[in-house]
Amino acid sequence: MPLTPEQQAEIDRLRAETQPTRRATVAALEAVLYEAIPVLDHGFVRVIDYMGDDAAVVQAARVSYGKGTKKINEDRGLIQYLMRHRHTTPFEMCEIKYHVKLPIFVARQWIRHRTANVNEYSARYSILDNEFYLPAPEQIAAQSKSNRQGRGEQLTPAETARVVDLLRDDALRAYRDYTTLLNTDEAGAVIDPDRQGLARELARMNLTLNFYTQWYWKTDLYNLLNFLSLRGDAHAQYEIRAYADVMLETLERWVPLTAEAFRQYRLGGAHLSAKGLDVVKRMMAGESVTRAESGMSKREWIELMETLGREP
Amino acid sequence: MPLTPEQQAEIDRLRAETQPTRRATVAALEAVLYEAIPVLDHGFVRVIDYMGDDAAVVQAARVSYGKGTKKINEDRGLIQYLMRHRHTTPFEMCEIKYHVKLPIFVARQWIRHRTANVNEYSARYSILDNEFYLPAPEQIAAQSKSNRQGRGEQLTPAETARVVDLLRDDALRAYRDYTTLLNTDEAGAVIDPDRQGLARELARMNLTLNFYTQWYWKTDLYNLLNFLSLRGDAHAQYEIRAYADVMLETLERWVPLTAEAFRQYRLGGAHLSAKGLDVVKRMMAGESVTRAESGMSKREWIELMETLGREP
Amino acid sequence: MPLTPEQQAEIDRLRAETQPTRRATVAALEAVLYEAIPVLDHGFVRVIDYMGDDAAVVQAARVSYGKGTKKINEDRGLIQYLMRHRHTTPFEMCEIKYHVKLPIFVARQWIRHRTANVNEYSARYSILDNEFYLPAPEQIAAQSKSNRQGRGEQLTPAETARVVDLLRDDALRAYRDYTTLLNTDEAGAVIDPDRQGLARELARMNLTLNFYTQWYWKTDLYNLLNFLSLRGDAHAQYEIRAYADVMLETLERWVPLTAEAFRQYRLGGAHLSAKGLDVVKRMMAGESVTRAESGMSKREWIELMETLGREP
Amino acid sequence: MPLTPEQQAEIDRLRAETQPTRRATVAALEAVLYEAIPVLDHGFVRVIDYMGDDAAVVQAARVSYGKGTKKINEDRGLIQYLMRHRHTTPFEMCEIKYHVKLPIFVARQWIRHRTANVNEYSARYSILDNEFYLPAPEQIAAQSKSNRQGRGEQLTPAETARVVDLLRDDALRAYRDYTTLLNTDEAGAVIDPDRQGLARELARMNLTLNFYTQWYWKTDLYNLLNFLSLRGDAHAQYEIRAYADVMLETLERWVPLTAEAFRQYRLGGAHLSAKGLDVVKRMMAGESVTRAESGMSKREWIELMETLGREP
Repeated sequence: MPLTPEQQAEIDRLRAETQPTRRATVAALEAVLYEAIPVLDHGFVRVIDYMGDDAAVVQAARVSYGKGTKKINEDRGLIQYLMRHRHTTPFEMCEIKYHVKLPIFVARQWIRHRTANVNEYSARYSILDNEFYLPAPEQIAAQSKSNRQGRGEQLTPAETARVVDLLRDDALRAYRDYTTLLNTDEAGAVIDPDRQGLARELARMNLTLNFYTQWYWKTDLYNLLNFLSLRGDAHAQYEIRAYADVMLETLERWVPLTAEAFRQYRLGGAHLSAKGLDVVKRMMAGESVTRAESGMSKREWIELMETLGREP
Repeated sequence: MPLTPEQQAEIDRLRAETQPTRRATVAALEAVLYEAIPVLDHGFVRVIDYMGDDAAVVQAARVSYGKGTKKINEDRGLIQYLMRHRHTTPFEMCEIKYHVKLPIFVARQWIRHRTANVNEYSARYSILDNEFYLPAPEQIAAQSKSNRQGRGEQLTPAETARVVDLLRDDALRAYRDYTTLLNTDEAGAVIDPDRQGLARELARMNLTLNFYTQWYWKTDLYNLLNFLSLRGDAHAQYEIRAYADVMLETLERWVPLTAEAFRQYRLGGAHLSAKGLDVVKRMMAGESVTRAESGMSKREWIELMETLGREP
Repeated sequence: MPLTPEQQAEIDRLRAETQPTRRATVAALEAVLYEAIPVLDHGFVRVIDYMGDDAAVVQAARVSYGKGTKKINEDRGLIQYLMRHRHTTPFEMCEIKYHVKLPIFVARQWIRHRTANVNEYSARYSILDNEFYLPAPEQIAAQSKSNRQGRGEQLTPAETARVVDLLRDDALRAYRDYTTLLNTDEAGAVIDPDRQGLARELARMNLTLNFYTQWYWKTDLYNLLNFLSLRGDAHAQYEIRAYADVMLETLERWVPLTAEAFRQYRLGGAHLSAKGLDVVKRMMAGESVTRAESGMSKREWIELMETLGREP
Repeated sequence: MPLTPEQQAEIDRLRAETQPTRRATVAALEAVLYEAIPVLDHGFVRVIDYMGDDAAVVQAARVSYGKGTKKINEDRGLIQYLMRHRHTTPFEMCEIKYHVKLPIFVARQWIRHRTANVNEYSARYSILDNEFYLPAPEQIAAQSKSNRQGRGEQLTPAETARVVDLLRDDALRAYRDYTTLLNTDEAGAVIDPDRQGLARELARMNLTLNFYTQWYWKTDLYNLLNFLSLRGDAHAQYEIRAYADVMLETLERWVPLTAEAFRQYRLGGAHLSAKGLDVVKRMMAGESVTRAESGMSKREWIELMETLGREP
């Protein structure tokens, strides 16, 4: 259970209050504001705050005095135009802030997105909870044979059980020894009054990378789209994709026209290389083109055929 | 007059509407939201949107589930601690968006602050208005003798009048010829139906650097403080300082505790070098120290004595 | 003539000296180091310094202890893979520094690329030279009818002559009055010893946007590719494209394998939307698809047909 | 031992070759180029490449055509002026690239410096070595009583031994089980041909935070100074400070004038708040000021007295 009763009460209290504002406001996002949306076994994503809406993208693109246009069709058309032609700056005019609880190894991938603001829970200053990630059985897969950085087939049930046992045992031992090093138990009480606890900044190094951390993460809409495009992709590691999937839902609530354009022009499309475009043109003209004629590497040819929904 | 009646009506309409929100809301900033606060002769600053408040800084510093603390004194103390110890990331958790109308030469200084989002009015796409900056007489000063990048004494009334006349005449001519090049008058009508107008992206090069442009500019609180600290400084050019001054007032409305800490620890303080600190220690111990003994350059010594309120 | 004899002598002196280094070195780029490559009528691009080469991209992608591989084919393949799959960070491991002389209106577009380091000549501190951009006759075109931010047909010779005259006269007057305001002539001599000159930071506002400025501009290879992709594009304004074209040649000298992959996967390719990809698949299967069936807007359909080399 | 014989041979080969270059070259930094400078028990810092020198800072500040001035005293004076007055952009004109091997918990602090380029060894793609950090006995200290995020007194020898044993045992077990999960031993051989290994991207989560990772890290001189100022500070965690200390030595080799100014104006100086400056002025005038009169908090007063070398 990721939230204590005190935390849940604090969230309920925040959700119960509203204030009048003159700012752009999005009811569909307000509906989930502050709520902890579960991800993986102990993680969550909470939308904490936001600035702007679809109309703010339009307003910035036009440097106008009002809020977007009155006609939703004009806003939709302009947003699609901006997305199609890589006019990125109007999307930077919206901002969103999340509170995220996530395993450390996921945090290490996530933090590579530099155009964002982050405040992470400090294990130099505070003691981490005894919460670590264990993959669900269906996620426990072998190293991929074709992709050096991915997963392949699922393991057998027996192997899966052994993996979970090893991961659990090592994490439990790591945490138990973390508390021993700190000389402080899970409830925060001193274990042995006759000895000193190791400094927190040192003790934390005994934890494994599946322990959960948490942070506030704030970014603009353009960089959020970059994040979702990379981390929501089928090549991203499942564990970070699980976060991207939940955040994509918050995107739909927040800026539905931008989300639609994003699906149409970035998630759903494909980039063709110069050679790839040449192959397509020739094939559309009825020519049959072989890989050798295309000048492409084998790997690239396979990727192109997959994109076009053809047998390689 | 910077705003047309249509623009003013649009602003009034925006100001008349409120929506309920669960987000952090700051009444003192809402009070001026969307309003055009005048700067220089034709410029303005408008706060268009904001995210977060003083409590959001505290919330991020603590990675807590609620909004800051309940006790204002604790929030004040923590914010002062963060400011004093250069803990910058919690201040990045608040965001503000301005609509600014400003002379191009001011825009050229301003844009050097890179950690911000900008959408500028495009003179490739649209035609600029006939509005240019003319300094008020008391701002018309000679080149400084001591500071190669500053102003010195005010010019004589006769010289001042001549400066204003030259600037006005050249700007008026530049604009008149801009419309001739575009073959479009100020009201947007074609001047001569028998000839083509020059492309806008070319015609604009005929304008002088005191013409007004406008943009949406969005930044986080930490980078806003950097901007205000550099551009509100006595060494900044008066024309950009005029904007920083107005924005400092919006800061006071938005995040009063942060503004107080900013004045105390950044605007009001002083940085001493290693040698400067050594001089201070020796003087406090009753020693009288000469510049030669300090190891400082003449210029640095003068700067230190000014900081300490002493005769050089 | 952009360079004074003193400047040329300084450049010649720099070019005459070499030092031994253990760093990655690129002979083809060294061959033009420090040289002023002319752009437009008075501008230039000079490569001042660089860090890394194609092998450094490979080295970073592999986090290896040596320099890339020994086999050029493996390096080429890996670089193409990285470019195709948006693995951007290895390209950030190379850096280049340019000295550029450019019209102010071009500088205003250029500076929007924020992930770069810039030091610009300061007209608060120094006096600008009497050099301004006048478009060549073949560049003097009417506003485009189809594209609100572009050029259309060339003007008639008579109109062209008038444009050049207006631009020249206004720039000359602006500069003459700039010197009057400064009370300093072009050679740096005081004009009238009985009056004070206006502060430089004010006088500069009288110059038109086609005057030349100059700066040092430094960026990493990944951000350089972004710059070249946007500013070398047919939709970019001709005047900034002229710079991008010259810089693309320096790219070819510096990192030929990266430049090749850049042409293949970014400049030469095309991005298809979800609907666009669907149209392509259906057409390749022999279906004839109309715009109405595609669900595309008219403008988007035209863009797609152009990409595919077909009649709309 | 951090380097294999193959890696050392590769480094020796790189060091043996030199090429002529026209670029700014720094002999004192070339002397250590590519060498692995040891940090902590298994880590290192290697300077891989650099761009620019002290003269390049001067060149950029002046936007000149040559390299700095001929007189070292003028360069020194200008660099000190730039550092004193926060003119940061000229320092951005130099760039340095490091290869660093460091414990993961140190990497997690380090990566918070966003204005840098990073390529990290991928444990999704490759298998990590069996190398983890164990603090030296003199570093094994209790939680600080006064500073919630620091260390206090050293532990007793018996407690220290126990800490080291726990950390070692847990890391060894974590690694042993990591190889079991991967079904691949340390030498890269399959352990049990009858079962599949877990995907690398999953198995890595079993490692503890003291395991070593490595990366290429590239930044500009200005951001390097920020890094050194924060991470070389007495309040930084010892383990990252150990890296900052070694990098400060490379700074001295690379840009001695900048390093001198950095020590004088940033490392060695002190920042006084408005109230602190007021206290100093009054004390220098012979007044005795109490904390109550100063308006300072107790903590702030203690900090000020420490800065001034006085009893609180």
